[in-house]
Formats: sequence, C-alpha cells, structure tokens
Amino acid sequence: MEVLALDTSNRPLSVAVLEDHRILSTMTTTVNRMHSKELLPIIKRLMSHSGLEPEDLTRVVVASGPGSYTGVRIACTTAKVLAFCLGIDLVSVSSLKTLALNLSADEGALVNPVFDARNENMYTGLYRIKNHMPVPVIKDQHIPLVNWLAELKKIKEPIIGIGDADHFKAQYQKALGKQIDFAIGMDNLPQASALGRYGETQKPVKDVNAFLPNYLRLTPVQARWLKKHPNASRKPGNYVDMYRAEI
Amino acid sequence: MEVLALDTSNRPLSVAVLEDHRILSTMTTTVNRMHSKELLPIIKRLMSHSGLEPEDLTRVVVASGPGSYTGVRIACTTAKVLAFCLGIDLVSVSSLKTLALNLSADEGALVNPVFDARNENMYTGLYRIKNHMPVPVIKDQHIPLVNWLAELKKIKEPIIGIGDADHFKAQYQKALGKQIDFAIGMDNLPQASALGRYGETQKPVKDVNAFLPNYLRLTPVQARWLKKHPNASRKPGNYVDMYRAEI
Repeated sequence: MEVLALDTSNRPLSVAVLEDHRILSTMTTTVNRMHSKELLPIIKRLMSHSGLEPEDLTRVVVASGPGSYTGVRIACTTAKVLAFCLGIDLVSVSSLKTLALNLSADEGALVNPVFDARNENMYTGLYRIKNHMPVPVIKDQHIPLVNWLAELKKIKEPIIGIGDADHFKAQYQKALGKQIDFAIGMDNLPQASALGRYGETQKPVKDVNAFLPNYLRLTPVQARWLKKHPNASRKPGNYVDMYRAEI
Repeated sequence: MEVLALDTSNRPLSVAVLEDHRILSTMTTTVNRMHSKELLPIIKRLMSHSGLEPEDLTRVVVASGPGSYTGVRIACTTAKVLAFCLGIDLVSVSSLKTLALNLSADEGALVNPVFDARNENMYTGLYRIKNHMPVPVIKDQHIPLVNWLAELKKIKEPIIGIGDADHFKAQYQKALGKQIDFAIGMDNLPQASALGRYGETQKPVKDVNAFLPNYLRLTPVQARWLKKHPNASRKPGNYVDMYRAEI
C-alpha cells in the first residue's frame, strides 16, 4: 500500500510518503511560510525522493482537524482532490489523535493533545494508549482552558500533555501539579509519518466528495449564516455556498 | 543558536535545521537514491524553508559513524567543509547514540542501537537514558552478532532494541526472550532533529580540520596499507594519501 499523509492543521506542516508501513520520505516544517503555497511542491519532492508517481498512490491520509480553519482546509482540500482525481481511498484522522500517535509506545498512558485555540480556549481531547494506538477517553472538543483543567483534575491518573503547549504549561502545572507531565522535543510536533502508518489500518471515508473537515466549532462564515437563519439546521453542510448565494 | 544537523550514516538520510532547540525544518528519507547527490539540495531547501542563509548558521552537528563507509563520509565531509568555510562550531555525535536519542523519554531505560554491518556482524553499543540523555554503558563497537548477544545476556535488565534490526530480530528474541523489546515505527529511523537538539548542548571539536569520522573498524584502504606496512602506527591518519602515494 502506497500512502501519502498530510497534516497542515496548525503552524507545523508535515508530509510523509509510505509503502506498506515503511516510511519512504517525510518532511516537517514549523516555520509557516504559507502552507497553501508550500504543500504541493513539498508533496511533489517527497514523491520524487520516494521514487513514486501520483498514479502509484493507493491511499491518502489526512489530519482533518481541529486546528486553524485555513490550515485544516489546506490539507483536507488537497487530500480530497487527490483522492477524488486518482480514484483512491481517503482516510480522515483527528488532528489531535495524530499528535497522540507520537506517544503510542507508552502502553496504558493517558495522553492529552493540545492546540491553542486563542483567547484561553483550546482544542483538546484525552486518549489512552491501547495496543500501541490512542483510543479516545474524552472526545475532541473546543473548550476554555479552565474548564478543561477542571475535567482533568477529576481523573486521578498521570497524564502526558503533548503539543505546542508552552502558553498553557504554567496553568496546567498550577492546576494539576505532579499529575501532568509534558512530552519533549520532536514528539510535540505532528508527524505525518505516524499519521500515515496509522491511516493504513483505518477505514476510508465512504464518499470522498462529501468529506468535510472537522473544525469542532462553527467557522465565521457558518456563524454569520446561522445568525441570519436562526431556524436553519446546524448539521454540517455547504455553508459557504449558502452564504455566497446570498451576497 | 542556529544549527544544521546531518546524518547519512546508513540507508536513511536525515537533515534538520534548528534554532535554539526549536525544530524549524526537517526531512528524512529511507530510499537511498544516492546521498552524495541528494544531501546538498536537501540542505539548501530546508535552509530556505527555515528562512536562513548559510551565514546565519552558528553550528553544524554531524552523526560521525559508525555506519556505511561512504554514508558516514558524505555527512562528515559536508559538515566539515561547511564548518570550516563558515568558521563555525562542528559537533560530532556517534551515529549509534543519535539513534538512542529517539528514546530519550524513557528515563532509566537501557537502549541498544543496532546497525547491520553485514556477514552477521553489527555496529552496536548499549546506552542508559539519564536525565533524558543516552549515556554509554557498553561502548560502540563492531562485533559479531553472537558475541554481542552473549554480552547482553549477562545484563539482567530489560533492553530496548532500536534501528533497522529486522534481520537480527529472530536471533535477538531467541537469545534474550522477554529481556528484549524493540522500538516501533519512526523511532527506528535516525532523526537529525533529535541529533541537532542534542548537539546544541555538546562541546564542539577542537580542530575542525583534523576531524575524522569514526568508522570503528579499518576501511579497506587502511587495511591494505597496514598489511603492506605491518610495523606502521595504527593511529588514525591520512591513510588514503599514504596509499595513493604508493600506487
């Protein structure tokens, strides 16, 4: 199985090409010089380093959110278009779970991936490593930091925090003390290589064309549309088109 | 501190650019399409992705062997020339220790990095993780597999094997049973990002021009020269020139 894996959910950009669980090439940058401009050339180079043509791919795996709206959209749109045009499988993995995959060696550990969602809010969830895979214990959500820390306090077990959490560290430590420890170094970066390996084992989405990112909160355009249409369904849909049709 | 880190000791090629312990860009490939041709373009791209010019670098960190003769030479020569021309620090780290750095989260663990040296021989060493750093317990060496397994058997502690060790796994497990466990996934690949972070904290070599790779055994050219000169010193030196002078 030849796999292309992509994650641009936040500031880091990570791409990997794998073959049957073996990493052929992978690149990760943390200097966001515009994911929309950089992603395709990086895919092209890694494919070339791996000795593969687009037609050789059998699966695309994408970190489908939460994260930065624009960031999440870039990898998801690229993955969706590639899977659609090549007629291959598309696998969608939570961007928080993608981060938790970095700690899959710590059997039994509780892992808390963290993205900063600004204004003392966060995207987060809690996972337990079982058989080298992160399994959700508390589902991914958009939540104020203080509320989340209160949730974690109820759990009387050690927790490993992971992600670019410097901004939150002091408050975590104040609230949780020795209950919390943080991952170090490269582990705090999403790695498309881990995403791709995991995605090889997961079920593909049923309808590539209907696939949508999982923002875990309304986008500004959705929020505006729903404000004007208070009785409309809140089910995910093509809000952008609905919104555009009215302006 | 702006750091360029390189490892081409074996089939994988890994390059990273870091700034003050933060990873800016990193790339790792396992498809050896000729390290000598690929290394410089990859360095150039990662520097560009990181927004750095060569003059911005303050340190080069290189995995200096053991490994494939040619592989080790490529990163070492590149690192040496860059450090010499830019007038910056050069830090040399064992290629086996570089691999052990991937498991630096496992405090107290015994880590056994492994490179296949062909004909049932291996380059290997034993490290213990102390304060998140691998510290040598048994020094790096070139040794037949059976002799090494006998060494490890004397140690009555669990050991984590790491590296592209598929070829050795069955014999490890037969000899050591439950004493041995193997790292999974990306951890088995040398990562220049970990090498660079570690190298930031280490002393640079005193004389860049005198820096030599650490092959841990004689190269074929050294062996031929010493065969013809049985009384010559076995101290590392410029055997190639000595050999060339005679042919």
